[in-house]
Amino acid sequence: VSDPGGFAGPRPGRVAIVGAGQVGTAIGMALTAAGPPAAVEEVALFDREERVAEESLERGAGHRIADGIDGVLSADTMVLAIPVDQIVAFLDRFGASVGPGTLVIDTGSAKVAVVEAMRRSVPANAHALGGHPIAGTERPGPEGADPGLLSGAPFVLCPVREDPAAIAGGRTLAAAIGAAPVEMTAEAHDRVVARTSHLPHIAAFALASVAGAAAREESAGVRLLVGSGFRGATRLAAGDPAMIGGFLHANAAEAGRAVDELIEELQTLRRALAGPAADLMRALERGRRAREAVA
Amino acid sequence: VSDPGGFAGPRPGRVAIVGAGQVGTAIGMALTAAGPPAAVEEVALFDREERVAEESLERGAGHRIADGIDGVLSADTMVLAIPVDQIVAFLDRFGASVGPGTLVIDTGSAKVAVVEAMRRSVPANAHALGGHPIAGTERPGPEGADPGLLSGAPFVLCPVREDPAAIAGGRTLAAAIGAAPVEMTAEAHDRVVARTSHLPHIAAFALASVAGAAAREESAGVRLLVGSGFRGATRLAAGDPAMIGGFLHANAAEAGRAVDELIEELQTLRRALAGPAADLMRALERGRRAREAVA
Repeated sequence: VSDPGGFAGPRPGRVAIVGAGQVGTAIGMALTAAGPPAAVEEVALFDREERVAEESLERGAGHRIADGIDGVLSADTMVLAIPVDQIVAFLDRFGASVGPGTLVIDTGSAKVAVVEAMRRSVPANAHALGGHPIAGTERPGPEGADPGLLSGAPFVLCPVREDPAAIAGGRTLAAAIGAAPVEMTAEAHDRVVARTSHLPHIAAFALASVAGAAAREESAGVRLLVGSGFRGATRLAAGDPAMIGGFLHANAAEAGRAVDELIEELQTLRRALAGPAADLMRALERGRRAREAVA
Repeated sequence: VSDPGGFAGPRPGRVAIVGAGQVGTAIGMALTAAGPPAAVEEVALFDREERVAEESLERGAGHRIADGIDGVLSADTMVLAIPVDQIVAFLDRFGASVGPGTLVIDTGSAKVAVVEAMRRSVPANAHALGGHPIAGTERPGPEGADPGLLSGAPFVLCPVREDPAAIAGGRTLAAAIGAAPVEMTAEAHDRVVARTSHLPHIAAFALASVAGAAAREESAGVRLLVGSGFRGATRLAAGDPAMIGGFLHANAAEAGRAVDELIEELQTLRRALAGPAADLMRALERGRRAREAVA
């Protein structure tokens, strides 16, 4: 749907959301609420688990269940809100069937793999764009969806080709759900997100494993002494291992380099532990300031 | 104040809180609210910064400012709510002056160093006890205090000597603030807390430093892509470096071993990153289950 009246790129029009989990449901709820004033004509939901699509529909994430994969492929806008490995598989299988003028965007947390799959599979007369809304919870499924988290959240847009209409369409979609579009290359995204998101996920799982091993040796004590600090520091390890494993695997090289950097920082702090208290406090103060500067 | 009417150990009586920061203020607020029915006669606040003691008093953490160190030493119950290194220094300087029958308890997050200082300085006719309420926020000072967090929170009690009255007094005090007393040796406490609290603190500072370094190279991108996941995973790095450095330094040996264990888990996950996605997901699933088992 090209827009004669002010939108610079494709309007959302008839939207199909592939994957009615937490992220797809939150986006669907926000788009459905935005409705015609945001050029959203209708929202159809698709999930390989029918029960999930129906639960999402009940939460108000769309107007109807999509008519199978053909219904998805004939939409004006396709939002791929499935784990990254499945996004790549979906594109490799169905990308060539995307119609002219259709906007294809995803929500995955790793972008180079997705953008490459779009480049090789989606026809050049469609508009393909990598997308990543920086909002979500660790609760999987439609019931974990919170469209309020999208409000004001950054929504990264990664160009696939020289295609200003794709970017414009992505901006319109991001604005429709109340998010703030941020344009960057897939490479820059993956480098940054490896440190701001993928590494905190890895650290949370590692911290949980250390405490789990201690619990096996120390029995009741560990469970008793776990407080809000531990719970907050490891909350990301409560997330869905399939989804998290998907984006970590898709960004394995950058995530691996980030792990190396974390190990280096830990070794610095470990050395400071053995020294005078004042040196340790100075090392901590550097970390505190670093957090203040970015978060 | 011995109790003829049902309490098995010393009653709180006239309480002096040394250190009117977040923890001292929260305990003072809870004790003041508990009042005479919990055998709390009065609560006096002491802080080397007068302004802090007054702010704490304004929050309702006590009935008055203590009459200097002499006023503190003549109380029935002394609660040392200062950083661990200062607790040890306080005990080495004033411990010998603690009167007969007085209960001396602290709130520090490392217990072997404190219990050893109590053993060498507090006279045997007083009742000394290591204490650690597992509740708090990363906000320092009286305004960070939240006595509601103490409600139902574990309050670890670490024996200093064979002194059942000290334990009984600690249990009465913990019950007065609504916390759940948990008795364990200082050694067991420090081993467990190194994994459930000290290590998450260290990881938070290290994660913040990695992101800070990325921000220096990647400029705006890092700040833009920091979401709630990063904020939650690094929240502990927003705490007071002096307080955190104090307890890490006091528990340096165990905290160091915990860092080694974390590095080992990170190296395992790093290897899994390079392998098939299914192996990575299995490794994450182990971490998720470990968290479920302890938190």
